[in-house]
Amino acid sequence: MKALVYHGPNNKSWDEVADPVIQDPTDAIIRIDTTTICGTDLHILSGDVPAVQPGTILGHEGVGTVIAVGDAVTNFAEGDRVILSCITKCGKCDYCIAAMPSHCQSVGGIGWIFGHLINGTIAEQVRVPYADTSMVKLPEDVTDEAAIFLSDSLPTGYEMGVLYGGVKPGDSVVVVGAGAVGLGAIMTVGLWGASTVIAVDTNEFRLEKALEFGATHTINANDPDLLQKIKDLSEDGLGVDVSIEAVGYPETFDTALQAIRPGGTIANVGVHGKSIDFPLHELWISNIKMTTGLVDATSMKTLLKMVQSGKLPAEKMGTHTFDLQDIDHAWEVFANAGEHKALKVILKNKNA
Amino acid sequence: MKALVYHGPNNKSWDEVADPVIQDPTDAIIRIDTTTICGTDLHILSGDVPAVQPGTILGHEGVGTVIAVGDAVTNFAEGDRVILSCITKCGKCDYCIAAMPSHCQSVGGIGWIFGHLINGTIAEQVRVPYADTSMVKLPEDVTDEAAIFLSDSLPTGYEMGVLYGGVKPGDSVVVVGAGAVGLGAIMTVGLWGASTVIAVDTNEFRLEKALEFGATHTINANDPDLLQKIKDLSEDGLGVDVSIEAVGYPETFDTALQAIRPGGTIANVGVHGKSIDFPLHELWISNIKMTTGLVDATSMKTLLKMVQSGKLPAEKMGTHTFDLQDIDHAWEVFANAGEHKALKVILKNKNA
Amino acid sequence: MKALVYHGPNNKSWDEVADPVIQDPTDAIIRIDTTTICGTDLHILSGDVPAVQPGTILGHEGVGTVIAVGDAVTNFAEGDRVILSCITKCGKCDYCIAAMPSHCQSVGGIGWIFGHLINGTIAEQVRVPYADTSMVKLPEDVTDEAAIFLSDSLPTGYEMGVLYGGVKPGDSVVVVGAGAVGLGAIMTVGLWGASTVIAVDTNEFRLEKALEFGATHTINANDPDLLQKIKDLSEDGLGVDVSIEAVGYPETFDTALQAIRPGGTIANVGVHGKSIDFPLHELWISNIKMTTGLVDATSMKTLLKMVQSGKLPAEKMGTHTFDLQDIDHAWEVFANAGEHKALKVILKNKNA
Amino acid sequence: MKALVYHGPNNKSWDEVADPVIQDPTDAIIRIDTTTICGTDLHILSGDVPAVQPGTILGHEGVGTVIAVGDAVTNFAEGDRVILSCITKCGKCDYCIAAMPSHCQSVGGIGWIFGHLINGTIAEQVRVPYADTSMVKLPEDVTDEAAIFLSDSLPTGYEMGVLYGGVKPGDSVVVVGAGAVGLGAIMTVGLWGASTVIAVDTNEFRLEKALEFGATHTINANDPDLLQKIKDLSEDGLGVDVSIEAVGYPETFDTALQAIRPGGTIANVGVHGKSIDFPLHELWISNIKMTTGLVDATSMKTLLKMVQSGKLPAEKMGTHTFDLQDIDHAWEVFANAGEHKALKVILKNKNA
Repeated sequence: MKALVYHGPNNKSWDEVADPVIQDPTDAIIRIDTTTICGTDLHILSGDVPAVQPGTILGHEGVGTVIAVGDAVTNFAEGDRVILSCITKCGKCDYCIAAMPSHCQSVGGIGWIFGHLINGTIAEQVRVPYADTSMVKLPEDVTDEAAIFLSDSLPTGYEMGVLYGGVKPGDSVVVVGAGAVGLGAIMTVGLWGASTVIAVDTNEFRLEKALEFGATHTINANDPDLLQKIKDLSEDGLGVDVSIEAVGYPETFDTALQAIRPGGTIANVGVHGKSIDFPLHELWISNIKMTTGLVDATSMKTLLKMVQSGKLPAEKMGTHTFDLQDIDHAWEVFANAGEHKALKVILKNKNA
Repeated sequence: MKALVYHGPNNKSWDEVADPVIQDPTDAIIRIDTTTICGTDLHILSGDVPAVQPGTILGHEGVGTVIAVGDAVTNFAEGDRVILSCITKCGKCDYCIAAMPSHCQSVGGIGWIFGHLINGTIAEQVRVPYADTSMVKLPEDVTDEAAIFLSDSLPTGYEMGVLYGGVKPGDSVVVVGAGAVGLGAIMTVGLWGASTVIAVDTNEFRLEKALEFGATHTINANDPDLLQKIKDLSEDGLGVDVSIEAVGYPETFDTALQAIRPGGTIANVGVHGKSIDFPLHELWISNIKMTTGLVDATSMKTLLKMVQSGKLPAEKMGTHTFDLQDIDHAWEVFANAGEHKALKVILKNKNA
Repeated sequence: MKALVYHGPNNKSWDEVADPVIQDPTDAIIRIDTTTICGTDLHILSGDVPAVQPGTILGHEGVGTVIAVGDAVTNFAEGDRVILSCITKCGKCDYCIAAMPSHCQSVGGIGWIFGHLINGTIAEQVRVPYADTSMVKLPEDVTDEAAIFLSDSLPTGYEMGVLYGGVKPGDSVVVVGAGAVGLGAIMTVGLWGASTVIAVDTNEFRLEKALEFGATHTINANDPDLLQKIKDLSEDGLGVDVSIEAVGYPETFDTALQAIRPGGTIANVGVHGKSIDFPLHELWISNIKMTTGLVDATSMKTLLKMVQSGKLPAEKMGTHTFDLQDIDHAWEVFANAGEHKALKVILKNKNA
Repeated sequence: MKALVYHGPNNKSWDEVADPVIQDPTDAIIRIDTTTICGTDLHILSGDVPAVQPGTILGHEGVGTVIAVGDAVTNFAEGDRVILSCITKCGKCDYCIAAMPSHCQSVGGIGWIFGHLINGTIAEQVRVPYADTSMVKLPEDVTDEAAIFLSDSLPTGYEMGVLYGGVKPGDSVVVVGAGAVGLGAIMTVGLWGASTVIAVDTNEFRLEKALEFGATHTINANDPDLLQKIKDLSEDGLGVDVSIEAVGYPETFDTALQAIRPGGTIANVGVHGKSIDFPLHELWISNIKMTTGLVDATSMKTLLKMVQSGKLPAEKMGTHTFDLQDIDHAWEVFANAGEHKALKVILKNKNA
């Protein structure tokens, strides 16, 4: 088969490689029908994730069709359409049992292994370990183009932003950063009844999308009165109930932190490259909560039901579509998303 | 009456002052029977809390007897024994209704006003605003010497440590700092079924007390293998479920933070004077939760029931007893708690 | 002033009575601008609620303007527009502090006293005890015609149905009975992300309204395959996650009960006149939860925010509008709601 | 091997049968070291559970040693000491993922299959399906005699009584029925900080045990003032916060129901043979919650930690010990527990 192989920093190619095979009785082999590229893949290519060994196939999102299952697999059979979870879940370690497969002990303590520690999904086929607990069956009435965003983007925004943020009906919420994950939070925050949803970004295209996806207000991050404007939108001027950081810089974290009211929550979703200076001398008294985390993707079925019932327009996340085999072109567009007005690219396997 | 008046940094005296009077229909006047000194009072005297105006009576903890009530007070009558909450709660602003009187909007946004923004409890009498919602009736079978620690120390350790930490049955918990508040957490953490409770402090006397109050293990904070020893005591070596910081320095916060496992919680109780360097570049992936906060004292009734049923030996917090009128001596002992093997001092009003 | 006075079973009249006056420092006097009639008022008139003494003014819902406040009232001032809670809340007994004013001990153990134990709101003025905690300020941009349903109908459907039912994103929910309260549940269940909302009633007009208010499916209660059809709409045919009973008969309760899956919840909202035969021999093994209760109306502010942000079209509950002074006509229409295609009637005080 | 085989109503024998073998890659074979008899086994023998086919080996509790594992089993290896869960959990159906294996869809919708739908544990060996998720590793420092009660009795009392009851610190709790499961609730209710724990039974031996296991008060169920005495023990005379029914008759259920206060919870643990008359006409207004359910046994690890740390004296549940091979004698004692002052019998496999 063909797959996108990482050969070290700034070096990738669409190579002919061996087809994956069943290794354990809990494995399945999936033909990829639709996949996409994640911002994390860009980071890997830059060499920022040294755990990724040269020779590894990239990608951790995918919709496909089962072509083989191991002896212990009972939830799936050949021919089933499935959504792959970006998180591999053994289903039987303490973390998986506690619904936190992001730290599955059976796969090494971090549940994200596709395109990281094992071969990934930007390929014509992929081996899925612990298949019974790491895939979700895809109903006929949901398209690949919507389902693909249930692998990672929507669950990340929803779980790490909305759920960890503890959003509840009537809350005011600010989302700092309206990229794929921030938009995932914006699109799903209504599931918990937020009444005010403020999107903050420097990119006007993304802010437009934010409104389309459910934000009630937008503010350009360069606005010198940003913080005051957020507070003015909160019920009593004290700040928002929940702040979702979806960028990953000290400055954006600080904006998100300053925006919350006493008793509020800041949910960090951004991937950070540096430590931050946290003003605990000011906030020890403020009854705030901060959360961090890698997605568990345990919300996939819930989100799928919402897509199926028409309440989550997941397909709107995909702005550009390519043949999987045209990966180089797709990569270029996604790597320069701003100039192409791209959110996520959709890759269709023309050999599927 | 007599009261301990703050006259500016390092200047306090036991003065004759005017008796307090009812100002609002929701006020009560309380004769102080028993009170105590808090570490915060030491900070105020050092000049660290500039909001405290010279002329203010110090203290925010107290057990006493009602001597007058305003027209709108219905929960209490003359002669009732009561415990004063360190937090004044109007009971009708959004924060009080949300059970977060630590940020009561009616008293200025911070519910701690005794000995801070209004006259306090190290006095023979005190005016209690919003008396109906800021005091708890004291049953006959609970002594002043136990009840006095329900004003602040035990609720702070319990609410900001145990409850904000989300301790649940079977959890492993480390408490960094075994002063009054840390010990308050240690004494109450069993109410939520912690199985392993590790106390960390540099002071061996406090560590002994920690074992007596419910800790299952102690480690001296100067132990070079401190962090490893904590992790070794956790179920699988990954760290504890909940870490309670009850000191207030960057170093102690860091110890508490490093001790938690992926999925764990750090509950900050310490009062910090500096910002901290938070390693978000390492922890964004760790699914941790951090909480901060001023006590709400909403747990007073629950804790009182536990004291009454014999399950919380609150009186053990008091190591030294003085006449209230001998406040200078008591203050000296408490200000040098280490050398006196003191935890909390008890002040009895001999004119009560 | 004029008011609707109950004179014993089947005997009411629009009488001239004395204006209400402040009795306690926590009282307020409100000029009623808009009010409505509740099904409970019909029951009272039939003599089904013997606690109501002849001479009592009926009604427990209302929007009005403050015309006087007692000395201890601080949240409101003359001229404020307010929504009255159907539940009187002292804010300082154990039940009120536990956010369950439905059992406020200060008003006798049942928080519903308007038009029951004291004079009610179908009047030109009303005295509101514990005004600070029993009213909500009405912003300018919300109309009386929407706000009036926040006194009782919407909070009852929301709190006793949706919240007690524990609805969460992705859930399937059946609402048995699409009267005002059932429709209140249907209108608000989306705040917690239900994906499937099935309305059941015998009245086709109400089923139409149910669809308009957010139901995804309707089934006529006379359908012989009712139960099977509900189960077929659940994800795996095992039944719904949450069943809301909003009628009050053994048969409708039984339908609601049989509709839930193992692990499901039945939230009873209906007012029942008889005991029920509960099949505990079949259900002891089923891991179900049943809840009952009188509304607390603690959700009024949350629901108000949703009305204000345009997410809850509360005003749709009112199908007919009358002058308050034309109460006899309004009563006739509401008492025969079926033939008039009425949900709730709106009564406007023309002297306001 | 030898095993206790059910041959139809009132007909059982200790027979030589074939050794169990691995059938699926997720199976394990366990040599039983210690087992016990459950009240349910007595019901089966009486013919009350028709689903049990003649030829089935009885029993669903056990501690043993792994003697073989299937290819897909990774959590356990030959030689491991394990506690068997009375509930078989596939770990990958919707119910198991939702932490409700009591309704595991992979084993037919009811997770209790040992000694019911497949061969059970009163045998020298047993085949355990879905072994990775249906057993817990037993540490060296916990005895078989304590661990055996983690298979069913303690988790049932804890999960269906204490957890479903929603017990929280400071609560008053009544447990109606002090048999093995009621005592399991009494022994574990302190993990959630109950302050008042009232045991009710007709048997004085059991009431003595209740006090030993953590009850603060006992009342004989024949006391004509039973209900009043329970209410008098509650904080304000209104009734208890949580009532746990652990018998299974309409009368005992009614006692438990009448004992709760408005806002209280009744957790049904008893196995009922008849429907009950539920006074919904009185309780629709009372804001109560009722729960039912089969144990999930998901608390086994938590309870094991508490046993290990010395906080749960589980071994006290066993009052009589026999050789497994002396099952007839043990059965007779357990079937007449009252006259023998027996709670649970311990059966030790002398061939282990």
